[in-house]
Order: sequence, then C-alpha cells, then structure tokens
Amino acid sequence: MATHRLVVTLSCPDRTGIVAAITGRLAALGASITEAAYHADTEAGWFVTRQVVDAASVPGGADVLRVVMGQVAAGLEVPGGDPVRWQVRDAAEPPRVVLLVSKESHCLHDLLGRVWGGELEMDVRAVVGNHEVLRPLAEAHGVPFHHVPFPSRAEDDEARTGRDAAFATVAGLVDEHDPAAIVLARFMQVLTPELCDRWAGRAINIHHSFLPSFAGARPYHQAHARGVKLVGATCHYVTADLDAGPIIEQDVSRVDHADTAEDMVRRGRDVEKLVLARGLRAHLEDRVQVHAGRTVVFR
Amino acid sequence: MATHRLVVTLSCPDRTGIVAAITGRLAALGASITEAAYHADTEAGWFVTRQVVDAASVPGGADVLRVVMGQVAAGLEVPGGDPVRWQVRDAAEPPRVVLLVSKESHCLHDLLGRVWGGELEMDVRAVVGNHEVLRPLAEAHGVPFHHVPFPSRAEDDEARTGRDAAFATVAGLVDEHDPAAIVLARFMQVLTPELCDRWAGRAINIHHSFLPSFAGARPYHQAHARGVKLVGATCHYVTADLDAGPIIEQDVSRVDHADTAEDMVRRGRDVEKLVLARGLRAHLEDRVQVHAGRTVVFR
Amino acid sequence: MATHRLVVTLSCPDRTGIVAAITGRLAALGASITEAAYHADTEAGWFVTRQVVDAASVPGGADVLRVVMGQVAAGLEVPGGDPVRWQVRDAAEPPRVVLLVSKESHCLHDLLGRVWGGELEMDVRAVVGNHEVLRPLAEAHGVPFHHVPFPSRAEDDEARTGRDAAFATVAGLVDEHDPAAIVLARFMQVLTPELCDRWAGRAINIHHSFLPSFAGARPYHQAHARGVKLVGATCHYVTADLDAGPIIEQDVSRVDHADTAEDMVRRGRDVEKLVLARGLRAHLEDRVQVHAGRTVVFR
Amino acid sequence: MATHRLVVTLSCPDRTGIVAAITGRLAALGASITEAAYHADTEAGWFVTRQVVDAASVPGGADVLRVVMGQVAAGLEVPGGDPVRWQVRDAAEPPRVVLLVSKESHCLHDLLGRVWGGELEMDVRAVVGNHEVLRPLAEAHGVPFHHVPFPSRAEDDEARTGRDAAFATVAGLVDEHDPAAIVLARFMQVLTPELCDRWAGRAINIHHSFLPSFAGARPYHQAHARGVKLVGATCHYVTADLDAGPIIEQDVSRVDHADTAEDMVRRGRDVEKLVLARGLRAHLEDRVQVHAGRTVVFR
Repeated sequence: MATHRLVVTLSCPDRTGIVAAITGRLAALGASITEAAYHADTEAGWFVTRQVVDAASVPGGADVLRVVMGQVAAGLEVPGGDPVRWQVRDAAEPPRVVLLVSKESHCLHDLLGRVWGGELEMDVRAVVGNHEVLRPLAEAHGVPFHHVPFPSRAEDDEARTGRDAAFATVAGLVDEHDPAAIVLARFMQVLTPELCDRWAGRAINIHHSFLPSFAGARPYHQAHARGVKLVGATCHYVTADLDAGPIIEQDVSRVDHADTAEDMVRRGRDVEKLVLARGLRAHLEDRVQVHAGRTVVFR
Repeated sequence: MATHRLVVTLSCPDRTGIVAAITGRLAALGASITEAAYHADTEAGWFVTRQVVDAASVPGGADVLRVVMGQVAAGLEVPGGDPVRWQVRDAAEPPRVVLLVSKESHCLHDLLGRVWGGELEMDVRAVVGNHEVLRPLAEAHGVPFHHVPFPSRAEDDEARTGRDAAFATVAGLVDEHDPAAIVLARFMQVLTPELCDRWAGRAINIHHSFLPSFAGARPYHQAHARGVKLVGATCHYVTADLDAGPIIEQDVSRVDHADTAEDMVRRGRDVEKLVLARGLRAHLEDRVQVHAGRTVVFR
Repeated sequence: MATHRLVVTLSCPDRTGIVAAITGRLAALGASITEAAYHADTEAGWFVTRQVVDAASVPGGADVLRVVMGQVAAGLEVPGGDPVRWQVRDAAEPPRVVLLVSKESHCLHDLLGRVWGGELEMDVRAVVGNHEVLRPLAEAHGVPFHHVPFPSRAEDDEARTGRDAAFATVAGLVDEHDPAAIVLARFMQVLTPELCDRWAGRAINIHHSFLPSFAGARPYHQAHARGVKLVGATCHYVTADLDAGPIIEQDVSRVDHADTAEDMVRRGRDVEKLVLARGLRAHLEDRVQVHAGRTVVFR
Repeated sequence: MATHRLVVTLSCPDRTGIVAAITGRLAALGASITEAAYHADTEAGWFVTRQVVDAASVPGGADVLRVVMGQVAAGLEVPGGDPVRWQVRDAAEPPRVVLLVSKESHCLHDLLGRVWGGELEMDVRAVVGNHEVLRPLAEAHGVPFHHVPFPSRAEDDEARTGRDAAFATVAGLVDEHDPAAIVLARFMQVLTPELCDRWAGRAINIHHSFLPSFAGARPYHQAHARGVKLVGATCHYVTADLDAGPIIEQDVSRVDHADTAEDMVRRGRDVEKLVLARGLRAHLEDRVQVHAGRTVVFR
C-alpha cells in the first residue's frame, strides 16, 4: 500500500525491439517493475505500454527516470510517423479532480463516497454545479461547491451569450486547479468546442446509454420506447463530436417489459455509477491511452 | 415432464376484473393452473396473461377449454378498442419449426444440439440454406436440407427477379409445414415485405449486434471501429422495417482493446447462440406477446 | 409516483382456485390492481402472491381491504396445514429502518445516498455503530448515530457478558422504532439467538461472498487463496445458523490472477452495495416471502 | 490467420530484469512479437510470461528459438528456488485432444461444433464414453468413439477392480495420442490418483457448480435446496483432491424461485458449455500457467 510508485506510460509507432529497449534501460537502472502491460495494435501499427516502478529502486527517483525515458523515447521516434508520447507520473500525490454536476446526485455521491472510504485516491478540489441542489452533498464531504447558473437551452443569441459566459466562469473555476480529470458527472450541458479542445484527454463524461445506442437526450425513454432488454451506460472522453468520444468503459443492466421508463432510469443509475467510477479510476491510474479514436485500457 | 399441458394466452384492453373473470371461469372448470403470469401495460392500457393448465384437470380437454376461453374473451371485448387476442395451445405436440441458414454454422449447430439433447422441444421439419455448406450438419441430425441458391445482392432487375424466385421457393418449402416459427439462423438475406407480412409474429431473426447499435451490415466491424467495450446480439421478430422488429431477447459479452474484429466475431457467436436459443424457446412456449411494437416476455 | 398504494401479500397451502378466490373478492370491491405476481411451489405445495392495489379504488381504503383479505384468508386455511399468512400494508408511509454498522463505510454511504436521491423510500431512524468512525456519514444525512462499543471477540465470560450488554443496548435502540428492517450493513458482529428470533424476517445481512462459498471470516482472502475467477456477495435474512439464512439476492464480479486479496475486497464492495440495495428494496416493497428456508422474490 | 506462430511460455522465480533478459535476446534474434503478457505474483515471488512470435521473423524457426530460450532460462535459475519452466510450441499444428464423456451430450456437442466451424483449433483424436449413447454425435463429426463400460460406483472389491481395469483401457486409448488435453466433458467418473498424476496439467474437468460451492454430486439439486440466486460452472485442472484443482474459468447464470432443480440444470448447461470452451481454448493456446495451486490465465 505504502509503496511509492512511479507510473511510466509510453506509446509510439510499433516495431521490433521496443520492449527490449525500454526494459533494458529500466533493468540497467535497477528499476523494480511491479506492474507491466503492453499492447500492440497491429492494424494501426501503434504500440502502447504502462509500467509501474517502485520509486525506491530508482536512484534519483522520478527525475532520473524522466531523463532515462526521454532518451528511450527519442530512440523510438520514427521519421514521418506519429510522435512518441510518454510520461512519468509520481503517484505519491493523489491527482486533482474537478467535478461538474447538475441536479442528479447519484454519480457525485458515489464518487465522494469512494474518496471518503479511501477506495479512490483523488483530490476533489471543487464541485461546480449549474444548480444549487447538490451543494449540501459536496459540502458534507468538505469540498467547495460553486454554483454557476446556465441559461435555458434556447438557441437565440442571448442564450448563447449567456452560456458562453457561464462556461467561461466554469473554465476559470476548473483551470485554477490544473486538474488531471474534469468529470462531467451527469452535467447535462454540452461543452463548447474550445473547452473540448483545451481539456482533450482530461474531460470525462458519463452518458446514460450504451453508446452508440440512444445518443442524445432522454436515452432511457428512447430505450423504453424501443423495448430493449438491457440498458447501459458509457464513460467516454469528451470531444466536440457529441457522444462520439473515445469510450473508456461500458456496462449494462437487464430490464424487462415490466419496467417503466422510470424503472429503467433507476436501474440505469447503478450502471452509471459503476461505469463512471471504473472509467475514472482507470484514467487516474494512467491505464487509458487513446489512439485513432479508440482507447487502450489496461486492466 | 410428462404432464400434458395446455397453454392459454390472452391479451386485451386493460380494465378492472380481468384476472377474476379468467380465473373464476378456470376455477369453475376445476382447471389446475401450474404457471400463471400477468402483465398490465398501464401506459398502453393493455393487459396480457399466460396460464399453463394441467390438461388432466379439464374434463373435455383442449376443446372444452377453447370454448370457455372464447366466452371469456367475448366478455372482454371493448367497443372501439383493439380486439382481444387469445389462444389455447395443446403442448402435447412439439411445435414445428423451419430454419433458414446461410454459411455460418454456429446457430444451426447449437439449435440442433439442443433438440438432440432433449432440451428444446421442437420438431425441425427442414433446413433451407442459400449455400450447400451446412447440409452435412442438418443431415447428421436427420433433418432434410434444401439448397435454394440466391443471386447476388445487386440491385438490377435480373438480381431482383432471381431473388423473388428464390424466395418463392423458400416460401413453398416453409409453408408446407405451417411452422410455429421460421428461424433466420444467420440467414443473411432480407425477407421480402410479403413474407414479413405472411410470417408476422412467426419469423424470428438473430441480429449480431446489440440493437439499435450497429444495425445493418458487418456489425462487429462497426463495433470494433467504434471501440465499444461490449458486443451483443438481438433476437427479434422480423418486420418489413429491417432490424427494427420487436425485440425478444438481448445479451452482451465483454471485449477489450486487444480484441480484433475477428475476435469480436468469435466472442459474439456465443452470445448469438444463447440469445437465439432463449428467444426461440420463449416464443415456442408462448411466453412472448407483442403490443405496440414491444414484447412482453414472461419468464 | 403519487398513487396511494396498498400492498397485499398472502401465502397459503396450494390448491385450485386460490387466485380466483382472491381476485374475485378484489374485483367485487372494485379494486384496481396495478401489479400482481403469483408463485406456486408445486414441490412444497405452497402458494404465494403479491398484489398492489390503488387505494383510491377501494372505498374505505386499507381498513376495508384488511377485512376482506381476512375473510379470504380464513377461507384458504387448510386443517392441519401451515397457517395462511397475509398482510395489507399502506405504502403511503415509507417503512422505518435501522442500520447497524461497524467501520466499513461503503454500504452505509450507498444506502444513505439512495435515500437522499429519492430512489429508495425508507425512513432511516437510526444508525448504530460499534465504532465511532461512521458517525459523520450518518449525521451528514441527518440521521442520529449511536455508538455502542463491543468487547473483543474473546470467548471468556467477561467478553460474553460485555457482548450481551452491548446487544441489549442495541436492541433497545432498534426496538423503539419498531422497524420494518434491521440492516446489518457490514456490522461484523454475530447477533444473539434471541435477537435472531425477535427480528426474524426483518434482520437483513450482507455477506461478502457468494454463499455458500466462503462462509465465515475473511471471505475475500479465502477466495484469493482458492483462485476463484468471480467474487460475490449475498443478501440474506439473519438466522441463528450463521450465514445460512434464506437468500434474498446475490451477484458476482469478475476477478483474475492479477487481483490481490485487497483488489478483490475493492471489487467486491461494489457488488455488496448493489446486492444489499436490491435485496433491501425488495424486502421493503414486500416482494420477498420465505417458505421452507427459501425465498420467493417477486421482481 | 495464416501467420505461422511460435508460442513461448516461461515462468520462474521473480526478480528484476527478467523481461529485459527475455526481450533483449528475442530482439537480438529479430523476433517479431505479436502478443506479450507478463505477470508477477509478488506475494509468491513468481514470474510468468507468454509471448507469441511470428515464426517467419526467426531464422531457423522453432529449433533456434528453443536453443535461445534454453539459454535464457538457464540464466534465470535461482539456486534453491523452484526450477524455471519454459516451452516453445509450434502452433502450426493444432493440438491433439481426447474427450471423455458419459451420457450428457451438451459439452461434447458444443466442442465438436466449434471444431466444425473452425472456431476452436484442435485435433480431436478420440471420444471415449462409459456409455454408448454419444457415439452418433462423435461419429457424425468423423471422430472415433470408444465405449469403455464402467462398473457401478459400489465400493466393494469387485467394483474397484472393474474400475481399475476400465481406467487402464481408457488410459491406453488416451495415451496413444499423447494429447495436449484430456477433457472430462461431463465424464462423471473420478480419475484414479495415478491418472491424475500422469495427466497433471493436461486433464481438464468441467464441474457443474461455482466451486467451492456445491462440490460433489448433484450440485444443481444442492443449489436449488439452498435457494441460491445464481448457478455456475467451473473449469479446472484435475487433481487427486476431487473438485479442488486449480481453477481455469468460471461463470454463472441467474436463476430465481420459479426455477425447479431441472430448470437449473438446463440453465447451467449453457454456462458449462461456455466455461469449458473458454477454459479449454485458454489451455490449448498456452495461456494458462499454474503456480501454488492457482492459475494465471492470460487473456
């Protein structure tokens, strides 16, 4: 539990000898690797790895490891290919997170409970809501709550200007923490393209359907009308193309003819909570890497 | 096992006293009810029931029960409402079934194995394939196999005429058995609107995706491209609106980034087999009733 | 949502005509039945039903319905058979519940969140803990918390006397509310036989394994040592025979060789929360009836 | 599909630098690794890996790779530690398998169907049954069937002698094929300790319960009597300690109060088929390694 861990991630164009190159250098350092995962997407020609190193085994710690990995990465660049991406994260500090919410409490409550119980290591710096209703939940867990009202969803100029202003306020409240994740925990507002871009790879949404089924509004009512036998939820990175971002995690729950749309909402909430918690954990532990619109999620 | 069962199904506009009306008459007959299920769709104002009666408890058997249920049904008609639908099926005889197949063997093999093992009571009268390749499987189980070649999927007049002729042949091979179910066990040909109509409520398809996701062709390849974390299958009644018929059963299987499209095909096959077998069993046991495009499936 | 509901449950020795007897009387009253479920355990010769009646449809309401059902029940008694059990519950009032906890927060937090979000209708009157640690969670939700320290698990006289005294205090704190459910939400103390008896059919436990596997202490460590590929949880009624009470609900979660015992604990918590919430909901909605050591749980 | 693959597996005492040692040598050979999985059981101090190499990338092929891996393995030996285990398997040839059966057809039929459909690459050399009933299934798939009658399960000397003789015959029929797997596909006879020993790591059983629940006879009837809400199946290596061998794969299926023991048998069969097929595939693809009574199963 108390081990001080360094998490190394790297992705690069695939070719022979990458693992040998990485592990050879790590072994030469004396680095003790406690977890290692590799994936080569042969179709896309792309290689991905995640390694967890016991910090105590690396003289000089994270800084030395970064120098070494920088050299390794430089040697893996391919002229004309996509650039190598790599990172060494010091896991001693829990990652900072900001949560965006609306009126639905279940995802917020679930995440805060996991933090309270010590199960999910993250530092929730703020909760931002476009309604006041969830303030007590956040404050009961000692997390600052900021209310940023949003105008209606009308598409006239005034509403649009109001939304832009509201999003600017939200962005300020978020960016001051430089969070590792901005979680749309049933936020119900569509991020602006600018924010999608600025928070790319960090903004995580929970959509209340098994995408690509029932994208858009009121998915449980769509599901009920279609008569499906399972309802689901999808945790994905937010992109400008609504509900089309790279999928991190999904799951489903069985329903039947006796379930009303409201029953499906209720059953679905349990799936949303689980899927968001699993997806967020994977993200915060650097288990997720995106390439060509799809995720690699190391278990 | 050896009990001689009569299966009563009835659906009608919902109102107070329907169950009392039915069970009162059945009790007066001395009918011993071994299974009973009820559902009222309050939104649609529609009532559905299924009852299994021990034939030995009804003097006069199925014929008398039909007279009684006819009288009950007459009393449940609502002027201007949808007509009452009811049926008394004598379960002494296994229902007749015809299977339509193409080249994929797994669903055919699975269904025939369930019949062989005595697990699924049905009388498979014929297998019709648009390719020869599955003949040995059918014949090894003593089921006649008919090869009806189909022209290409081209949309010129010649192909269309050829398909119409092929479907006419298929229809003849099917209809001579007056089957309780026509199963498209990965048949891969789109039924003509006429056959959809003629076989309404009896033609059952297995679609290799979790509908409404990935309707249409090559769903596993669509799923792979989208990077979903579960693949699924859907058993549904065939309607003229392709892949939009009432859903009987669905299920999913977990996949991950390491699965190629071919791996998804393989994992999906196991779901297809299960979903088709469950859906078909429910249909043959009169557990499925359709109203307003959605199914009630009594467990 | 706002419908005033009366929930009728009845179980009795099975014979022909029970449904007709019940529904005939309800129809004569003009009672509008919004949900109905029946089960006959032919092996045990035992019949069980649950009906939900719209209170507005019964002139005189719950009191009249109780008189009628009392008459129906009297007519279903079988000389020498097990006595008929029946009840009419007025669902206008949320049922009272007391929660017993120890140090683990996840089940308590989950249940309180469901109440907060309006998803689970119950009136949590008190939380009783044998440690102080969960007091803030209870109080943040406005629920009184009572700390009742327990002595060690030693089997000497002093410890036994201490436990008896502690249980007497707990019993007092519980019984003053006459709760419909006493939930052992990871309480970790074994109820005395007297309390098992007094709270029979109302005390509900969540056991952190898929019973009957890994009964007793540290089930996840047992599971890890055995190398199972799924871990589970079981919600059951408490009986004097530890971990052998009638099972209300169970579920499992996939684990693999990479999971340590601690990982299994974490994955298992999510199953425990779901299984307890589902089991408790079923109990509070009168969906569960016990006969011969097994439950009927109407969906 | 057509790639000629070499599958390398190795397990050894854990220490720093193993991956570098292996992949360094493979890279020096120019070996193209298409799949790689690693696991270090830190508790047991044991390291396991599986690598799939494109044979075309290794000059000299399997023979050269074996020499290299032998050298690598020699360098990983730890004085006083458990010996290094390694293997290079040429996947060009489908592995040989013998199936042992009794009267239940579903597992046999399922496996043969997977071979027929090209989904499971194995060479079923023989089916040995202690009853005649499954002969037609085997022969319909062109597999020789051998009937070896077994005496009753009585525990007198005559029965024991008869069983020993029958097992000797079975062993002869099995061993002539030197199979990679001996599958007890619902064989229902307890292997002798000698055969458990001789076939250690190759004899695979499907048990019809979620072990360790309901070990022993008639598990579905035990499950029904206990009132569990899920039934399961377990695929495991056979050891002399009945039903206690290392678990390869498990899964479950939901049941409820309306299911008789016979219904549970039927639902369970689908789980048995899936679990056996998945477990056997993992074994045949060298994805399973056993250490300290538990398996590592690479996905």
